[in-house]
Amino acid sequence: MSAHPALLPPGSTIGILGGGQLGRMLAMAAARIGMSCHVYCPDPDSPAFAVAAARTVAAYDDRAALEAFASACAVVTYEFENVPAETVEILSGLVPARPSGRSLAVCQDRLEEKRLCEDLGIATAAWARIDGPDDIRDAVEQFGAPAILKTRRLGYDGKGQANVMGPQDADAAWAAIGEAPAVLEARVPFVCEVSVVAARGEDGTFAAYDVAENRHDGGILRVSRVPARISPEIADEAVDVARSIARALGHVGVLAVEMFVVRQAQGDSLLVNEIAPRVHNTGHWTIEACPLSQFEAHMRAVAGWPVPSTARFADAEMTNLIGTDADAWQALAAQPGTALHLYGKAESRPGRKMGHVTRLFPLGEMPAD
Amino acid sequence: MSAHPALLPPGSTIGILGGGQLGRMLAMAAARIGMSCHVYCPDPDSPAFAVAAARTVAAYDDRAALEAFASACAVVTYEFENVPAETVEILSGLVPARPSGRSLAVCQDRLEEKRLCEDLGIATAAWARIDGPDDIRDAVEQFGAPAILKTRRLGYDGKGQANVMGPQDADAAWAAIGEAPAVLEARVPFVCEVSVVAARGEDGTFAAYDVAENRHDGGILRVSRVPARISPEIADEAVDVARSIARALGHVGVLAVEMFVVRQAQGDSLLVNEIAPRVHNTGHWTIEACPLSQFEAHMRAVAGWPVPSTARFADAEMTNLIGTDADAWQALAAQPGTALHLYGKAESRPGRKMGHVTRLFPLGEMPAD
Repeated sequence: MSAHPALLPPGSTIGILGGGQLGRMLAMAAARIGMSCHVYCPDPDSPAFAVAAARTVAAYDDRAALEAFASACAVVTYEFENVPAETVEILSGLVPARPSGRSLAVCQDRLEEKRLCEDLGIATAAWARIDGPDDIRDAVEQFGAPAILKTRRLGYDGKGQANVMGPQDADAAWAAIGEAPAVLEARVPFVCEVSVVAARGEDGTFAAYDVAENRHDGGILRVSRVPARISPEIADEAVDVARSIARALGHVGVLAVEMFVVRQAQGDSLLVNEIAPRVHNTGHWTIEACPLSQFEAHMRAVAGWPVPSTARFADAEMTNLIGTDADAWQALAAQPGTALHLYGKAESRPGRKMGHVTRLFPLGEMPAD
Repeated sequence: MSAHPALLPPGSTIGILGGGQLGRMLAMAAARIGMSCHVYCPDPDSPAFAVAAARTVAAYDDRAALEAFASACAVVTYEFENVPAETVEILSGLVPARPSGRSLAVCQDRLEEKRLCEDLGIATAAWARIDGPDDIRDAVEQFGAPAILKTRRLGYDGKGQANVMGPQDADAAWAAIGEAPAVLEARVPFVCEVSVVAARGEDGTFAAYDVAENRHDGGILRVSRVPARISPEIADEAVDVARSIARALGHVGVLAVEMFVVRQAQGDSLLVNEIAPRVHNTGHWTIEACPLSQFEAHMRAVAGWPVPSTARFADAEMTNLIGTDADAWQALAAQPGTALHLYGKAESRPGRKMGHVTRLFPLGEMPAD
């Protein structure tokens, strides 16, 4: 449906496709402003169901269920960008969806992300399109190694990735990612990883939360802290990058842009790593450190409300609880100044995000690591 | 059931009796720590249902429904203190309940509240038990007028109250409150109204949020701000009062004590006005200003968890949205640094609490009114 929904009044029903922890936190945020949420997910044990006014358990290609869902909702949004094309196709024409198909299409495909940045003059690490092991060898010859091979689609949390240390790894890396269309990215030595989580409204207004500094382990986010230990100039540049991307996508809602800070003789600069057209793990600290979290910012934008203030009133460090980390909930619950979040997942598996903790500090008083 | 529930692990189901905005915010807080909530309320349009994993729509004296509810929950708590005695009687023996019957019994009856304070040596305004208009005349003769007549039971938000300007008002006031057992309280000139919202754990540990300063209009809370403009000594004394009351009640969970600050030649002092054995409207600012809100503190205590940190990272001013105030949601949503809460109530009625807004300020930077 190309028509945009009007500014939705409190009491409207917002549909959320996907019932994981992001859907759960989106539903809770929407409830704050009196919105009612309908969560659609194939998994009957979806964490988001416990805080939603209505639930649909059905496959993403179940046309009848999607039609009923669409008719129950004033607008629909997504917890994740890898919505099957068929789902988008069925929903489109039935209910307005935010963000738009363009945000999804670009962010579903690493190649499209790279091309978007190229078009916008935004720097990334050297990259090449890969459709077979020969392409890997050619790219390594061109920009060197180490490099990382990533499937164009459906990769997350380090999945669908393989290291390439030299041309000799081409065949094994190609096999490791399942011989799927991919991109090869040069590995860059970076000072730190940062991300900008920002909201863009239907009217084009844009507001970014303060830049977060992130640390990944094994491809999975471990810690985000804010403020990032970067210069004000680099912080401003990071926000400008996110603003350009959001504008180019015609994005409505929250989006996140992950970047590397690289240091060269002439000073620090930024390379875009990934774009996510949704609320993001590196923005979870906004729940406690800001009066309006990234989740509420997204749901407000989805409802056609103006982009809200992204003001922050505390420094914060967010640590993911992965796999069995959450088993320590008793000790974590006892830490002063610490908010514990558990996603209500029954089963802990290695690499599975089970929750997170956010420690707050008075502004300007966050200790070094 | 006299046995206390063990420390409940995440994933447990907590029952909430009452489905209004307090139940709604309790359910959302419990979901943060991975608890599942089952809300029981006679009203099919209860605001709390939209964020609860399970719902029961049934009367508070429906024995079969209460039994099924009890069997589905590991522990039960209350959104309000005026739980019918019959409900408590049916639930007791079936499921542990927090707070205990003693907290409810005392706080359901203004006379018991006054007696508790008297026993603890905690000051209140002069008061008298009223069982008829003659008692009113006697009390006015004893401690003067103006005074306020309040039903012992079931009063809230200014309901069940009548002003007594002198003995001539006795008959009319008695009629105005429905000839119900009551107390007469001397009206005291006060510098300000304050409240302490605090949590007490199963193990007797106690933690208070910073004292809030409150303003009522027509018996209904209008604004709470923190920090209160009182001396550190009075603030400490207010917390001590709340601690004594919580201990005497054997309270588990959050409770709130409203007090008047009165100024005399020898300095300021406190008079207890009301006790609420639950989360309280004057603690709503904790949602944004603290990493752990009063709602989460209550649910943690109800789950047998240790009392959490009540640290605060911002100054805050909370304003209730009453009746048609919430119609201005568009303007309110656009105010920077302001969190808007709407309770999902379909119908706005005069005096009905429809939502609230909390404005944050950096610590120490809240402007005067």
